[in-house]
Amino acid sequence: MLKERATQFIQKVKLTGGLLAERADVVRSEVLPYQWRALNDQIPGAEPSHAIENLRIAAGEAKGEFHGMLWQDSDVAKWLEAVAYSLMTHPDPELEARADEVIDLVGRAQQSDGYLNSYFTVVAPDRRWTNLRDNHELYCAGHFIEAAVAYYQATGKDELLKIMCRFVDHIASVFGPGENQKRGYPGHEEIELALIKLYRVTRDRRHLDLAKFFIEERGRQPHYFDLEAEARGEKPSKRLGDYWYHQAHMPVREQTTAVGHAVRAMYLYTAVADLALETEDAELLQVCERIWDNVVNRRMYITAGIGSEARWEGFTIDYDLPSDTAYAETCASIGLVFWAQRMLQITPDRKYADVMERALYNGVLSGMSLEGTKFFYVNPLSVDPEICKGRYDHHHVKPTRQGWFGCACCPPNIARLLASIGQYIYSQGKDGLYMHLFAASEATFAIGGSRVKLVQQTDYPWDGTVRIKLEMDAPLGFGLNIRIPGWCDDPKLVVCGESIVVTVPQDGYVRIHRTWTSGDEVVLELPMPVTKVWASTRVSDNVGKVALQRGPVVYCVEEADNGPNLAELWLPADAELRVEMDPVLKVPAIVGQGVRRVSSSDALYTTERPVDKPCTIRAIPYFMWDNRGLGEMRVWINDLTK
Amino acid sequence: MLKERATQFIQKVKLTGGLLAERADVVRSEVLPYQWRALNDQIPGAEPSHAIENLRIAAGEAKGEFHGMLWQDSDVAKWLEAVAYSLMTHPDPELEARADEVIDLVGRAQQSDGYLNSYFTVVAPDRRWTNLRDNHELYCAGHFIEAAVAYYQATGKDELLKIMCRFVDHIASVFGPGENQKRGYPGHEEIELALIKLYRVTRDRRHLDLAKFFIEERGRQPHYFDLEAEARGEKPSKRLGDYWYHQAHMPVREQTTAVGHAVRAMYLYTAVADLALETEDAELLQVCERIWDNVVNRRMYITAGIGSEARWEGFTIDYDLPSDTAYAETCASIGLVFWAQRMLQITPDRKYADVMERALYNGVLSGMSLEGTKFFYVNPLSVDPEICKGRYDHHHVKPTRQGWFGCACCPPNIARLLASIGQYIYSQGKDGLYMHLFAASEATFAIGGSRVKLVQQTDYPWDGTVRIKLEMDAPLGFGLNIRIPGWCDDPKLVVCGESIVVTVPQDGYVRIHRTWTSGDEVVLELPMPVTKVWASTRVSDNVGKVALQRGPVVYCVEEADNGPNLAELWLPADAELRVEMDPVLKVPAIVGQGVRRVSSSDALYTTERPVDKPCTIRAIPYFMWDNRGLGEMRVWINDLTK
Repeated sequence: MLKERATQFIQKVKLTGGLLAERADVVRSEVLPYQWRALNDQIPGAEPSHAIENLRIAAGEAKGEFHGMLWQDSDVAKWLEAVAYSLMTHPDPELEARADEVIDLVGRAQQSDGYLNSYFTVVAPDRRWTNLRDNHELYCAGHFIEAAVAYYQATGKDELLKIMCRFVDHIASVFGPGENQKRGYPGHEEIELALIKLYRVTRDRRHLDLAKFFIEERGRQPHYFDLEAEARGEKPSKRLGDYWYHQAHMPVREQTTAVGHAVRAMYLYTAVADLALETEDAELLQVCERIWDNVVNRRMYITAGIGSEARWEGFTIDYDLPSDTAYAETCASIGLVFWAQRMLQITPDRKYADVMERALYNGVLSGMSLEGTKFFYVNPLSVDPEICKGRYDHHHVKPTRQGWFGCACCPPNIARLLASIGQYIYSQGKDGLYMHLFAASEATFAIGGSRVKLVQQTDYPWDGTVRIKLEMDAPLGFGLNIRIPGWCDDPKLVVCGESIVVTVPQDGYVRIHRTWTSGDEVVLELPMPVTKVWASTRVSDNVGKVALQRGPVVYCVEEADNGPNLAELWLPADAELRVEMDPVLKVPAIVGQGVRRVSSSDALYTTERPVDKPCTIRAIPYFMWDNRGLGEMRVWINDLTK
Repeated sequence: MLKERATQFIQKVKLTGGLLAERADVVRSEVLPYQWRALNDQIPGAEPSHAIENLRIAAGEAKGEFHGMLWQDSDVAKWLEAVAYSLMTHPDPELEARADEVIDLVGRAQQSDGYLNSYFTVVAPDRRWTNLRDNHELYCAGHFIEAAVAYYQATGKDELLKIMCRFVDHIASVFGPGENQKRGYPGHEEIELALIKLYRVTRDRRHLDLAKFFIEERGRQPHYFDLEAEARGEKPSKRLGDYWYHQAHMPVREQTTAVGHAVRAMYLYTAVADLALETEDAELLQVCERIWDNVVNRRMYITAGIGSEARWEGFTIDYDLPSDTAYAETCASIGLVFWAQRMLQITPDRKYADVMERALYNGVLSGMSLEGTKFFYVNPLSVDPEICKGRYDHHHVKPTRQGWFGCACCPPNIARLLASIGQYIYSQGKDGLYMHLFAASEATFAIGGSRVKLVQQTDYPWDGTVRIKLEMDAPLGFGLNIRIPGWCDDPKLVVCGESIVVTVPQDGYVRIHRTWTSGDEVVLELPMPVTKVWASTRVSDNVGKVALQRGPVVYCVEEADNGPNLAELWLPADAELRVEMDPVLKVPAIVGQGVRRVSSSDALYTTERPVDKPCTIRAIPYFMWDNRGLGEMRVWINDLTK
């Protein structure tokens, strides 16, 4: 039943221009080469990653000590995965040869029993699989599996795939319901979604079963993390409580709210959605839908940042969304894109695509500087550099993007998402083609036995006009299902020169069913007025404040445009807001007449009401903040009612 | 010169009724007996203090191990000090006998060389004076000295005074500028102010010199905390940076802003003011004035809470005053009262008395429940119990007062302040009598050779009428200098039945110079309308918000009166605010027509502006919050301009 209505996302979509193409180009030209040098310790001044050297030592080809995090291998895996996506649309024999060499090395670092992890091979072979709660063996395995699948899909080469299948065989021998097996599962989810990706390529049922095992065992009693701690001779130490940090506080099927570490949570829910689809498990889908509702209607920033508490990099309670102490890790928003895509795959409904798009254009893109050389882990919605320096509870908030990180999870995660962003635009099902995102691009579909090429021309998200041209060998009847974003009130549609009265159905997809001829054109107009957005008044931090959005892009005010003390800015309810091209950022800025409400004296407390002075308020896209020097930033502006 | 204008505070002032008398009665009837049982481990269910037993072990009269904090002795000292103040105005032979026994025990715990500290005597005699940065030997000594002075003043008994003079002789032999002496000073200031108190009783110049030595050495290079760390064979570990936590980042004379741990800072500045006065050091006074300005005009909550960061329980940067993550330790506001009193002693100016009063009626009184059985360390200005539970960065904020603490610094500090609060009302100088605070009380002054009795009748701070009756044997000419609080715009004064046009001078003290006759009466009327207070717009957390104050009392809204989600409440600019007696709390509540602005849908983000619904807003005195069950509380209410 689930498979019946599900659609398949189309992989080989080539971006031809516009914001996403430009961001993906930056990944190819800056991030991947930089990351390669980082993995090989060739960045002067940066903490050496040692990741490639670790594999060499594990392979017995170099001497020395392991360096870096327990999960240092995963940096290599994510690089390989991003390279694979890049090769899919941008062949590069030199890059491919380099990747092949790394894959060879990975193969040589694999142990004879199939085990693969440079830390445990080099440092602690006797401690393999003894602490799933904290060690990241299965996490690293998951990332290598994802890389293997992507590389196979991109190049047809299956060396890494075979390496990983051997490793999975080993894992499946250690973990399972059998008498001599461990009933364990990873402290950091990741392998579950990777195993289902693998299954979709291998169709080897054991790969799906292992994913299912990990998901179903999670949170059961007696608790595996307790048992393995006892086996190590330790007291069960529950980080921050009853394993909710790991989403292992209860069986997955009983979970109703998003808890704990946000990235782990996203990777788990993504896998649960995949498993629901592959096993036609309606109950598991309901679990996902329930938690989805909780996340997007109670625990998500307007930027689709998630995780409002730094201590556990994750979720707290409903409506607790402070702007300044947000965690909103770039990786968590990326995870939300993954999960949204899986939900959308099962149920084509814009409520998923809207969130996917919100995450992409806000919480994800903000993670990387325009040049592609600096990165945010944490994506706050309000920043005062002095406060970041002066307060301990703001120390996690960096007021400017950082060069690289000892724990370099976010930059390679952005790289792999942006390198594959074309894969999120279209899906295909028995109702025809689904168009979820708007981006200048070319894609080819097989419908029945025929090939259909679809060309999008647009400057989205800056402009709401999307021209879709269809090319095919012979006329063909199929449905074209186009998402009307939730933010758009007044879409216009012209199909082959004919204006159509658009009635947006509940699920947000306008369905055009007809016999198409090569050269047919659909023009979609999504008007993009400046929109004011209010948060629920239950979000105490946002009470009395308003945010500006245009299309899917959330805006912010920066000190560079508005001077310091942004908290003093007020946006009058009747302020006329116009859009003008920013001369530096080359994107639409929002400009309007505002008010600066300031104290009339230097007193800290006074019985005199502050006075209002007119000022200009200028807002820029949130994801572009911190590209013009250090300063304050705010998404939520004081709302001046009359 | 400084001594010329300075006044002396009058100690034996008996409170006869009203709020302060009632709070002091609660200290006598509840806190002191409770604390005595705590010191003797007689509280079922509470962590044993072991403080008395520690002294017995140190005296060689009991066997066993030391328990508790390094500074456990100071709990005994603070109890003795509070008992002394109580005995000054409320003789109690049984209590005095008990105190005498404790003092005997302290004497027996003193070592032959004068050293006194149960931890180092029992646990680590070889580590005496090796870590002034972290250990609290001088801190404990300071509290015992304060107790000794108070007990001597209260009872005339000098046993503890002699014990402490011997200990001070020992300390003065260890520390000083001599070749074989240590140039150290305490990591937690306290002994400095205590030594000056001691000097004022003994007039032994060495006591003053030792205080001066500790203050002048502080923060000099080479840094003593580095040197002693090296001597211990440790690397200099600067807690949170360059010793600013200890106010030892630079010499005291160079300091310009309040930094680090707020209680330590207050105790230091109090001592510096005392030293300035005793040594006629105008430069040191300027240091105090500079830092005072910084605290009260940049770094103080409206409640006179200080310390906005939990990590170091102290100061951050100018205008950083978040309501919900405030530390605002009760002890810090008590320290601010001490410091304000010393500044006021040197310079009679209401800017000091206003802050002293603000601290007393808000940040200090809030530390203790109405019954006197529960206490706050941390005094936030906004509380949501769910957030306190759900967020790590709010874990220091308890949404309800606690029974007792392992580190029980605040409860005994409240006890000693309230037991001695009469000592803050009057001072006397060559200009006559100064009346700084208003409280029903009786006090006797010696003016020239004559005795003058002054009786205040008032229900302050709930009512602004203060009747002052003078009694004396024969007519006498002297000045009566009455503070007109900064919050009062329109004071009225009737002297011996005659209305006087009040012109408030710059320093805020109305001076009535005349020949007084017994039975003369002065009636002061301080009108107490409900006042709206705005914070500087530089305080980003308070932008768009307003606080209510009546007289010196800051008000707050509580869930008990206003329901949950207090962030949704708005106070219209034109709302009529009336005062009515609260039937439960028996004090004036502020009531007015407000607005609850709520979302019109369940959506987390929406393009629909929230809607306003009329509601009643009811505010109660801030210090009385959390006496009617668990719930939200807010001082700053949204300000609805028209």
